[in-house]
Amino acid sequence: MEPIDPVTARAWLATALAEARTRLEEGGIPIGAALYGADGNLLGRGHNRRVQDGDPSAHAETAAFRAAGRQRSYRGTTMVTTLSPCWYCSGLVRQFGISRVVIGEAATFRGGHDWLAAHGVEIVLLDDPECAATMREFVARHPRLWSEDIGD
Amino acid sequence: MEPIDPVTARAWLATALAEARTRLEEGGIPIGAALYGADGNLLGRGHNRRVQDGDPSAHAETAAFRAAGRQRSYRGTTMVTTLSPCWYCSGLVRQFGISRVVIGEAATFRGGHDWLAAHGVEIVLLDDPECAATMREFVARHPRLWSEDIGD
Repeated sequence: MEPIDPVTARAWLATALAEARTRLEEGGIPIGAALYGADGNLLGRGHNRRVQDGDPSAHAETAAFRAAGRQRSYRGTTMVTTLSPCWYCSGLVRQFGISRVVIGEAATFRGGHDWLAAHGVEIVLLDDPECAATMREFVARHPRLWSEDIGD
Repeated sequence: MEPIDPVTARAWLATALAEARTRLEEGGIPIGAALYGADGNLLGRGHNRRVQDGDPSAHAETAAFRAAGRQRSYRGTTMVTTLSPCWYCSGLVRQFGISRVVIGEAATFRGGHDWLAAHGVEIVLLDDPECAATMREFVARHPRLWSEDIGD
């Protein structure tokens, strides 16, 4: 697989960030994700839906994975997420052989992306200030909800 | 947390196996799971729904977790599953701090349960012949569907 170019990585992150940002208005958890195919087409996008659906299994990455529907293979696909993936979402990436993860930021929460890198997943960490600011604002306002979402 | 007694472990596995077994008739993937609370009450049960719902995110364990709804804490809870949990479901257990996993069998598929044990999760492996026979029959009949479900 060719390395992703920075312009494409930023454009894909914008999709995930758009999923995240409107969630604050809904009272939800502002984490967004999108799954892109090996050909660069968007397969699915989603956001955390713990609050909106009362569904603790709907993290951003699993929601995007679900929205993409059944796929024969995830070889060459890229999961783009505004935040470093937790163990649940890291496990998803490893189990299904998603090839690459583009991460908005890992400053507010550090999940399993080093573990994924050690198991051959290409990790692109963008250190995006807008993603970090969105999460920081959310965690400051709703610390209990954030703890609940990561099983803390 | 006290160790689980064998009679309770078998009784809980029967709930997961009941979820699994009827799935063969629906053309689905016969893996079932249930989440029990620290007090021994059933919080949620579920089964793999890839075929029935076209939902690749609905593994048995994540379906049971979802059915249990939002919980403030998973301390003391037990995930019971007919089959060793894949990385996706193992990640779920680790992230949310589920305390124990009771596993029907790990002969037909070995997931991440050693990793969970290394991270402090109590693992009870029952080597149940009925769970193993159910999976063996399914894998023999539907090898491609099984490969799809574990991202092979």
